[in-house]
Amino acid sequence: MSLTPGETLRTLRERKPLVHQITNYVVMNETANATLALGALPVMAHAPEEVEDMASVAGSLVLNIGTLSKHWIEAMLLAGKAANAAGAPVVLDPVGAGATGYRTETAQRILREVEVAVVRGNPAEVATLAGREAEIRGVESLERGGAELAGAAAAALGCVASVTGPVDHVSDGQRTLAVENGDPLLATVSGTGCMSTAVTASFLAVRADAPLEGAAEALAAFGVAGEDAAREARGPGTFHAALYDALYALDPDTLDARARVQDV
Amino acid sequence: MSLTPGETLRTLRERKPLVHQITNYVVMNETANATLALGALPVMAHAPEEVEDMASVAGSLVLNIGTLSKHWIEAMLLAGKAANAAGAPVVLDPVGAGATGYRTETAQRILREVEVAVVRGNPAEVATLAGREAEIRGVESLERGGAELAGAAAAALGCVASVTGPVDHVSDGQRTLAVENGDPLLATVSGTGCMSTAVTASFLAVRADAPLEGAAEALAAFGVAGEDAAREARGPGTFHAALYDALYALDPDTLDARARVQDV
Amino acid sequence: MSLTPGETLRTLRERKPLVHQITNYVVMNETANATLALGALPVMAHAPEEVEDMASVAGSLVLNIGTLSKHWIEAMLLAGKAANAAGAPVVLDPVGAGATGYRTETAQRILREVEVAVVRGNPAEVATLAGREAEIRGVESLERGGAELAGAAAAALGCVASVTGPVDHVSDGQRTLAVENGDPLLATVSGTGCMSTAVTASFLAVRADAPLEGAAEALAAFGVAGEDAAREARGPGTFHAALYDALYALDPDTLDARARVQDV
Repeated sequence: MSLTPGETLRTLRERKPLVHQITNYVVMNETANATLALGALPVMAHAPEEVEDMASVAGSLVLNIGTLSKHWIEAMLLAGKAANAAGAPVVLDPVGAGATGYRTETAQRILREVEVAVVRGNPAEVATLAGREAEIRGVESLERGGAELAGAAAAALGCVASVTGPVDHVSDGQRTLAVENGDPLLATVSGTGCMSTAVTASFLAVRADAPLEGAAEALAAFGVAGEDAAREARGPGTFHAALYDALYALDPDTLDARARVQDV
Repeated sequence: MSLTPGETLRTLRERKPLVHQITNYVVMNETANATLALGALPVMAHAPEEVEDMASVAGSLVLNIGTLSKHWIEAMLLAGKAANAAGAPVVLDPVGAGATGYRTETAQRILREVEVAVVRGNPAEVATLAGREAEIRGVESLERGGAELAGAAAAALGCVASVTGPVDHVSDGQRTLAVENGDPLLATVSGTGCMSTAVTASFLAVRADAPLEGAAEALAAFGVAGEDAAREARGPGTFHAALYDALYALDPDTLDARARVQDV
Repeated sequence: MSLTPGETLRTLRERKPLVHQITNYVVMNETANATLALGALPVMAHAPEEVEDMASVAGSLVLNIGTLSKHWIEAMLLAGKAANAAGAPVVLDPVGAGATGYRTETAQRILREVEVAVVRGNPAEVATLAGREAEIRGVESLERGGAELAGAAAAALGCVASVTGPVDHVSDGQRTLAVENGDPLLATVSGTGCMSTAVTASFLAVRADAPLEGAAEALAAFGVAGEDAAREARGPGTFHAALYDALYALDPDTLDARARVQDV
């Protein structure tokens, strides 16, 4: 299937899908604002008493394990199953998988009990879930092996693996795409990874039939916004503000030409 | 009673009332900063063990149900009753009432067990609580019917209803005021509705005797700040930063003339 | 020991220590971003199931009681003991001690059960913990007595006391330092006190042997960043964004000359 980020963004802004996010406390405001600036409608809800109601009317669901606790895990599983039943794509952000056993096991449990469309994480997190942590030998080697890691993780996990870094790699186990958009300032603001997950879920809400392409388009769009924001920024704080301006101003007409995505 | 937003703002900055806020995770930082920029003192506390202590010394209390869980509901009821006992006005923000049964029922329970001075919400939320959800036929019809909805909700709920949108309507069931300040960029930042609730509570802390007028003055002041911020903004991110600058710089001397409030 | 904020900052950026923060909901994003902009690596984790794992690999630990609840207190104690066992300095931010009994008692319990390297708070909070609340007679008198308060608190609590205000005072009970960097705009943004605690913990992660000097260096560095941000700001919102830019741009080569620290 061909990549059409401009058309996907245009559709997203027309349909304004509801993107249900169970995400960590640190970035809730940031991912809500990124979703809204892009043109979708964020809704944050985590009480076990209501997550099924919310997930079943949403266009997609984010499960982000950045600040876990017992009741939230229960809520994530309930929401995930409700989204599955409603046919809404689920995007998992396994923040800190590998850093503590609690996070690794929670991410694994979600992958076991919920049908996840896309896992979006950094190389260490995705490698941990793919059972390849033994191969991690510093960031540099991971960067070189990003394409290989994404492919192996997709095969092992049975879903699309979206591994972000200076170059992003997205794979469904068969086809692997490299996305070269972005700016180094993205790494200076806490939560930009989580924002890219929210943008991925926003794109998937209107591209449920093509999670590989939707995930790559989302990273290209987010990366282009990062490039635009960097031109306005004097550092991480002004970059952060400019990033919402840039997501809001993203132009569907030029997005296809600016997206630097290719098969690897 | 006449509207004197400039005088109320001047009094607020002299007295610096403590505004206790039990509010959702997504906007806590934002409503704290809006309160502080305006000139009041925000305090966020939600543990059942301490909310009564805090609410009983505060000038007003915000109960915002944007991200509920069981213990928070318990804390909201305790805090609400303590504020009632101390004579501090309570402002309810029924975020998402109508979207899930859990939220609708929680908002109704608060209205039943706590004496609420003002409910500040969007048309769908307020219509749900007023038992008029059957009449909701899309946003456009709600906008046309904002004044009527505010009046009916105030009568049904026995408190001031503050219904925000492109034009805001505030009613105590007898008198209804329309507030026409604001800017479309307010709708592009998550949490500006919650901020308008915090500003409402800040105004009520020094205007407890006139919740109708205080609520309308607050929306006018917040709307004027939005107008000022829009002139500095290049999109939602820079607007968000400029909004705090504008709240901080709000001039009591020109506020009465800039407030676009009228009886309807 | 002499003060070398420039060298400490340079070391911090080389080593990029992991700074584990159990902090309040209101400022989580802000303290994470301040830590990251400075050059250290923030990690936020509060589940009792994982805090020991996280604290035992971190370079330092922040315990901030700004929004308490029962499970968080349990997590703070577990994390504090794990950090102690690993030799990582613990910085306590007793937000609101004195405002409610729950906060005062929790801060006291942490001080009893965990070996705290530095308590960073405002005069009222520190005076409460030092058992000197009876002497509090308004902010002005506290400002004049800051040096004396810091010294007495350090002696009473058996750790470094870092009392911030227009002039900061840091004492280990023997030596007391005054830090005169900063800008009044810092008081217009919610969470800048909590950010100064995170910066303190970041410095201590590479200066564990000298908590007095490390704490004073941290406040000087944060204050210099505040001075730089103020030059870019038009109010609290643009100041807030500029503060991260300034932390990121802090120049180790000029920091010693710009730090206004002296013995009192």
